[in-house]
Amino acid sequence: MKTLIIGVGLIGGSFALALRRHMLSDEIWGVETSPENAAEALSLGLVDRIVALDEGLPSADLIVLAVPVDAAPLLAVKILNRIGARQTVMDTGSIKEELCDVVSQHPMRSRFVATHPMWGTEYSGPSAARNDAFAGRTVVILERERTASDALALVERIYETIGMHRIYMDSGEEHDLHAAYVSHISHITSFALALTVLEKERVEQHIFDLAGGGFESTVRLAKSSADTWIPIFLKNKYNVLDVLREHIHQLQVLRKMIEADDADGLAESIRRANTIRRIIK
Amino acid sequence: MKTLIIGVGLIGGSFALALRRHMLSDEIWGVETSPENAAEALSLGLVDRIVALDEGLPSADLIVLAVPVDAAPLLAVKILNRIGARQTVMDTGSIKEELCDVVSQHPMRSRFVATHPMWGTEYSGPSAARNDAFAGRTVVILERERTASDALALVERIYETIGMHRIYMDSGEEHDLHAAYVSHISHITSFALALTVLEKERVEQHIFDLAGGGFESTVRLAKSSADTWIPIFLKNKYNVLDVLREHIHQLQVLRKMIEADDADGLAESIRRANTIRRIIK
Repeated sequence: MKTLIIGVGLIGGSFALALRRHMLSDEIWGVETSPENAAEALSLGLVDRIVALDEGLPSADLIVLAVPVDAAPLLAVKILNRIGARQTVMDTGSIKEELCDVVSQHPMRSRFVATHPMWGTEYSGPSAARNDAFAGRTVVILERERTASDALALVERIYETIGMHRIYMDSGEEHDLHAAYVSHISHITSFALALTVLEKERVEQHIFDLAGGGFESTVRLAKSSADTWIPIFLKNKYNVLDVLREHIHQLQVLRKMIEADDADGLAESIRRANTIRRIIK
Repeated sequence: MKTLIIGVGLIGGSFALALRRHMLSDEIWGVETSPENAAEALSLGLVDRIVALDEGLPSADLIVLAVPVDAAPLLAVKILNRIGARQTVMDTGSIKEELCDVVSQHPMRSRFVATHPMWGTEYSGPSAARNDAFAGRTVVILERERTASDALALVERIYETIGMHRIYMDSGEEHDLHAAYVSHISHITSFALALTVLEKERVEQHIFDLAGGGFESTVRLAKSSADTWIPIFLKNKYNVLDVLREHIHQLQVLRKMIEADDADGLAESIRRANTIRRIIK
């Protein structure tokens, strides 16, 4: 199988490594608009060649979209316009509603598999690609009934082989709502926490010295890339704002309890928060 | 050396393990008010005996206070009332201003070493004690000029041996301010994040399936114990409220930018948040 990966950064690069490691693809070509990233992806051996989109498309069995979420919908249409009935296109982005909508009426819709492998790190670019990515995590596959069975089977087999647990969702809308709750909000709180501490704690050496494991793990996501996350926040604006409103409300409730020395109220809230143990091991 | 550990939970228990592992103490006795914790501490071999405070004090060379921060100040005075000039008392709590103030005029003040080893986990109780605790982290030692040189040297040698990097602060007030920034606020945001997601995301299986590494690490601290953290928030109320106010403000600024599709503003904020990389590796 020959694979064309569009966007050879953290996700595209890690996906290339996973394909190679599990011998799922004989040849991997990449499309990459940034010359620095292109050179780096080649020198790291993530892809065999960097090509232009039109050069890479005709011979690819599998086309993998791994670009920022604001670029994906238009690119998906352009690719579907140019492929044949035996080629499969998949994407890997964190936002799905607009993308699923945009391709919905395309005559080649059935060649497209919308997926979201729930893995990432706070780093970006080809050098952030990791050999141990994806395994043990969940991948969401969307609108499977709109996908040709051979295309779906190919993508399912790849995710199975690289060790991902599959779940299915019926719509991009449903996906984006859940993603706001369990992924996007964490990034916003982490950015805000970093800004708070940088604002309040002027003595940086003290942050460094005093940050126990707790602070490090809550603030880790604040190292994440603006280029990746701004399109996600803006494309998922409605859901993100909704969750953010609730989060600020919860902080204000805790603040009022602390102000009022309301130990009983705090105990009730914290014990409720502790129930997250049931869900997150 | 004979050690008496008062409060054999996560911190006291881990401290006992560290003393044993580095052969710093021949005998370790524990004082523990909870009968379950006392039995567990014994069965795990954290301490050699569980004794009453008055039974354990006379023969102890080192007395280690590892109780919740609301119990520490009064207990410190009671212990200083009962010890002799060759005994050393240290504490390990996360809040220092009140404690340092309460012992400040005690005739045995110089036998007391106020310390805060910056290590912890989201778990509590004797079973949470860990053999690999403390190493590589920072310990804050406070008001060293008020401590007898032999007592200070003993405590410094212990922390040195168990692998902690020492920093010194002149006052409990200074400590509590920094601790609010880099430790306490992380716990509040994590509790609030758990509450947000539990409130908004009613389908628990979805949280479980979709939570990538990011969510897990931001929400991990929400598993922390109410008994440990409520006294910390209330004892450090002024600082905690101040940082919390700033954190809510930062979230509101980000929310307004998302509402206004202000990609430039978000980029500036996120790039500023990214500078936390300089400090947290």
